[in-house]
Amino acid sequence: MSDLEVIVEPGRQDIVVRRGFDAPREVVFRAMTEPDLVARWWGLKDSETRVDRSDIRPGGTWRVVERMPNGEEHAFRGVVHDVTAPGYFVRTFEYEGMPGHVMLETHRLESDGDRTLYTAQSVFQSVEDRDGMVASGMESGMAESMGALDEVIASLV
Amino acid sequence: MSDLEVIVEPGRQDIVVRRGFDAPREVVFRAMTEPDLVARWWGLKDSETRVDRSDIRPGGTWRVVERMPNGEEHAFRGVVHDVTAPGYFVRTFEYEGMPGHVMLETHRLESDGDRTLYTAQSVFQSVEDRDGMVASGMESGMAESMGALDEVIASLV
Repeated sequence: MSDLEVIVEPGRQDIVVRRGFDAPREVVFRAMTEPDLVARWWGLKDSETRVDRSDIRPGGTWRVVERMPNGEEHAFRGVVHDVTAPGYFVRTFEYEGMPGHVMLETHRLESDGDRTLYTAQSVFQSVEDRDGMVASGMESGMAESMGALDEVIASLV
Repeated sequence: MSDLEVIVEPGRQDIVVRRGFDAPREVVFRAMTEPDLVARWWGLKDSETRVDRSDIRPGGTWRVVERMPNGEEHAFRGVVHDVTAPGYFVRTFEYEGMPGHVMLETHRLESDGDRTLYTAQSVFQSVEDRDGMVASGMESGMAESMGALDEVIASLV
């Protein structure tokens, strides 16, 4: 049973996601940032994900393309503001299908015995942008991706 | 008389700044981004500003250091998410004295005849971070910087 929490408070401009993973944070960090590993868990079950770039250092750029079963492609990209492996990275996030709407994501990994507690905060330019993301089915998509991430992590330990 | 507007709505996580400049946006954009020009207007009147980096392209990094009359230095840094000169740039912003508190800034320059209308939005990770920025005297500091920016711009046209 996953302990995924998605916190969306009325009127705020952010979403906070919390989840535990059954592995040390070094492993979770790798799975969240290395291109070959990200491609294995990002996106919906039936889509195919390709990681064009995942350069996790300040000023590094990242781009992920999700190819849907009908052939449509959805691309996401941003830059890395800061990183302190394996506990912290901050980056921007933009869906290329809605250019000009940018988010700031802060990812934290904390050790809890053999487990890792993951907290991600996404800050949006407006409440409307945030609510649009929630309405797009973000929570179920994230639950699916995090489940796939569990499998990637299990293959690494 | 400056038309500076600083919009801080209760409970939101952002600040919006609007101001007009008496020059075409190509000139305003240069003054806002070129290192030698930024050093001339950034910060308080009695401080000395040095621009370590101002690499305005996606993934470019920037860093500005303000040296106060008493010798204290305050440094600010971030990365550029996106830029479309001379109308748009998005970057992150972090005051090195409060590490881990990051903002997302969106800057827009619109032509209005011979003038330029500038709109900047800063999104904070929390309402508290935003209110702290406001309480630090941000509005009067910004009015001072924008006045100095007027002079830099006037020297370019």
